[in-house]
Amino acid sequence: MDFSEKTIKKDTIYSGKIIEVNLQTVVLPNGRKSKREIVNHPGGVAILAYKDDDTIFMVEQFRKPIEKSILEIPAGKIEKNENVEACGRRELEEEIGYRAKKFEYLGKVVTSPGFCDECIYIFKARDLYKGRDNIGDEDEFINVKEVKLDKIKDMIKNGKIIDAKTICAFMMV
Amino acid sequence: MDFSEKTIKKDTIYSGKIIEVNLQTVVLPNGRKSKREIVNHPGGVAILAYKDDDTIFMVEQFRKPIEKSILEIPAGKIEKNENVEACGRRELEEEIGYRAKKFEYLGKVVTSPGFCDECIYIFKARDLYKGRDNIGDEDEFINVKEVKLDKIKDMIKNGKIIDAKTICAFMMV
Repeated sequence: MDFSEKTIKKDTIYSGKIIEVNLQTVVLPNGRKSKREIVNHPGGVAILAYKDDDTIFMVEQFRKPIEKSILEIPAGKIEKNENVEACGRRELEEEIGYRAKKFEYLGKVVTSPGFCDECIYIFKARDLYKGRDNIGDEDEFINVKEVKLDKIKDMIKNGKIIDAKTICAFMMV
Repeated sequence: MDFSEKTIKKDTIYSGKIIEVNLQTVVLPNGRKSKREIVNHPGGVAILAYKDDDTIFMVEQFRKPIEKSILEIPAGKIEKNENVEACGRRELEEEIGYRAKKFEYLGKVVTSPGFCDECIYIFKARDLYKGRDNIGDEDEFINVKEVKLDKIKDMIKNGKIIDAKTICAFMMV
C-alpha cells in the first residue's frame, strides 16, 4: 500500500544556523488534508573509535536541550557540501584528538523520523594515531573517556548510556 | 568538570501542535556567549511487542520528513499529562490492535540531544490479546507486519531497519 503524503503548501517558519523548521499541508491517503511540522537538520556522523580491541573512546558533553551531561560516541554535524567520511574523520580528530588508519562505514539511522529528517551515518574507526592536541572547538566542551567494551551492555541497561546514536552504533557492530 | 551552560535569554520562535522551537543565548564554560537552537518535543513511547517467542510486531509508516515509508516498532507521542505506561498501552492498541497482559519498562533514550529534548521510553509487551479492530487514527496510516526475531540483526545491518528507537529497543532487550 502506498501511504505517501503529497505536499500542497509549505511555509518556512524558521531558518536558523543549524535547523530549519517548516509547516507543510499534506494530502493524506484518504484524501483529507493534514499539517506536518517538520525540522530539517543537516545530519551527522558518529564514530565507534577503538583504542584497542577491548576499549573505545567516548565523550562526555553537556547537552543544553536536556540540561545535562551525557556519554556519547564522538559525533558531529555534516558541514555544507562535506563528504560523510571526511566529516567523520574531522569530528574524530576534533573530539578525541585522534586520526584513524581504518575507517569503515557501518550504516545509517534516522533519529526522529516522525518530525525530523536528521540522519546519522555511523562509522567504525580502528588503528588510531595521535592527531591534534586541543579537543573541542570554540563552543564545544568535551571530556574524553575510555570505556571497556564489556561494560557497554550494562551501561545501556542501567541508563548510564541513553544516547540513541551511541546505542545504535553498538547494535550495528 | 562542570560544562553546564547557563541560559541568559530565551526567545520562543515557534509554538506548534507538537513541537516548540526556541533560541537560547547561553554562557559557555569559558565565559563566552553562544546561541543554542532547541526543539522541545513532548517525548514518546515505543513498544517491543511479542506475538510469540520468535516474532514481534512492527509497523510500516510513511514518514513525511524523510519522504519514505520505514519499518519501526509501534510508538507514539505522549499526550499532555499522560502517564508513560498508559501512553504505551494506548499506542500499542492504536497501532497494532492488541493489548498486553505483561508490559515491562526497558529504559529510555534521547534521540537527538544536540538540538532536541525528545526522550523515548521503551517497553516490552508480552501475552498479547486482541483489542480494537481499526488500526491507526485519522491522520496515521499503518501497515502492521510480523517480523521474525532472528531476522532483525540482518535487517539492521543491511539497512532495512534504520529507525533509531527501534534499533535501541533491540539492544535493550
